[in-house]
Amino acid sequence: MPSTTETLTAERILEATEEVLRRHGPAKATVVDVARALGVSHGSVYRHFRTKAALREAVTKRWLDRTSERLAGIAAAEDLAPERRLRDWLAALFEAKRHKAGDDPELFATYTVLVDELGGVVHDHIADLTGQLTRIIAAGAESGDFTAPDPATTARAVFHATGRFHDPGYAREWTEPGIEEDFEAVVGLLVRGLRAAG
Amino acid sequence: MPSTTETLTAERILEATEEVLRRHGPAKATVVDVARALGVSHGSVYRHFRTKAALREAVTKRWLDRTSERLAGIAAAEDLAPERRLRDWLAALFEAKRHKAGDDPELFATYTVLVDELGGVVHDHIADLTGQLTRIIAAGAESGDFTAPDPATTARAVFHATGRFHDPGYAREWTEPGIEEDFEAVVGLLVRGLRAAG
Repeated sequence: MPSTTETLTAERILEATEEVLRRHGPAKATVVDVARALGVSHGSVYRHFRTKAALREAVTKRWLDRTSERLAGIAAAEDLAPERRLRDWLAALFEAKRHKAGDDPELFATYTVLVDELGGVVHDHIADLTGQLTRIIAAGAESGDFTAPDPATTARAVFHATGRFHDPGYAREWTEPGIEEDFEAVVGLLVRGLRAAG
Repeated sequence: MPSTTETLTAERILEATEEVLRRHGPAKATVVDVARALGVSHGSVYRHFRTKAALREAVTKRWLDRTSERLAGIAAAEDLAPERRLRDWLAALFEAKRHKAGDDPELFATYTVLVDELGGVVHDHIADLTGQLTRIIAAGAESGDFTAPDPATTARAVFHATGRFHDPGYAREWTEPGIEEDFEAVVGLLVRGLRAAG
């Protein structure tokens, strides 16, 4: 039978870290807490993550990746019309963020603090998401459905213009009445801008 | 010669309040500080503003109104083409906010805290700004330059889609390289959406 240390994977540590963050918040969660939750020495944790900062970064990246992985399927669904993919993708992003904020507000608040501290991780996450958007918009430009001479720039514009519906700073507004209509109005206007002849 | 009390206008009190806020921050500024700065009794201040809350609200409203008044002229410039007015208005809003944030960061931070506390004042300010935008978009719909069956809804969508360039939560990004290009890309996409035939 394998010892605890042998089965101690990075993924198990990250799961435990998330649980510790949920219970103690971002300020208090330490490597010792994580090790205790797993019943291992803190040295065993350090073998996978060399610093507390590395552990925080990895757990935050994992949390953000959960969103981008859900969206990647829509970005890659080349059988769907580009406009449909774009609308579905933006709706799925909004939905994913709202669920994260609404289902587990403490954990969401915790990750929002971490995200604020981890510029590099956020940068990569946004690059990942705008990369997916670029793929959809480039497909639309190629098929003639969209006018977008520079799909990457247009993708950034679409991402920025929809910030109200995915930026954690707006989480308070996501439960307000009328937010769905606001979302539809912004997306409708952007789609019309994309459809327009140059 | 009039006594100090006789010349004590609401405007003078608000000017002094802003100065006290600049020096002491939002948490510490009191009516007594304001009265002291003016060389009057705090009773004289209360004669104009019945509570500390009323004074905070009035000074915040005055600060927000400075922005909307600057923009009102563009919204009313009916000799300009609607697209020109819209672009100018959005650029002026971004410029006004950037200046507020950059020229006097302490005061900006102070007002950002106050604004967060004063839901009603902010609501009126946003209604004022989106009202100006509605006027521009309705003019474009009338002249046939824009397609906007419901100018008020479209105005809200334009306001929301440009939040990155006027919402104080993004103030940190306003000095980053590339922000001008990001702004142009969003505005360009929105204008194309407005121009589009239904």
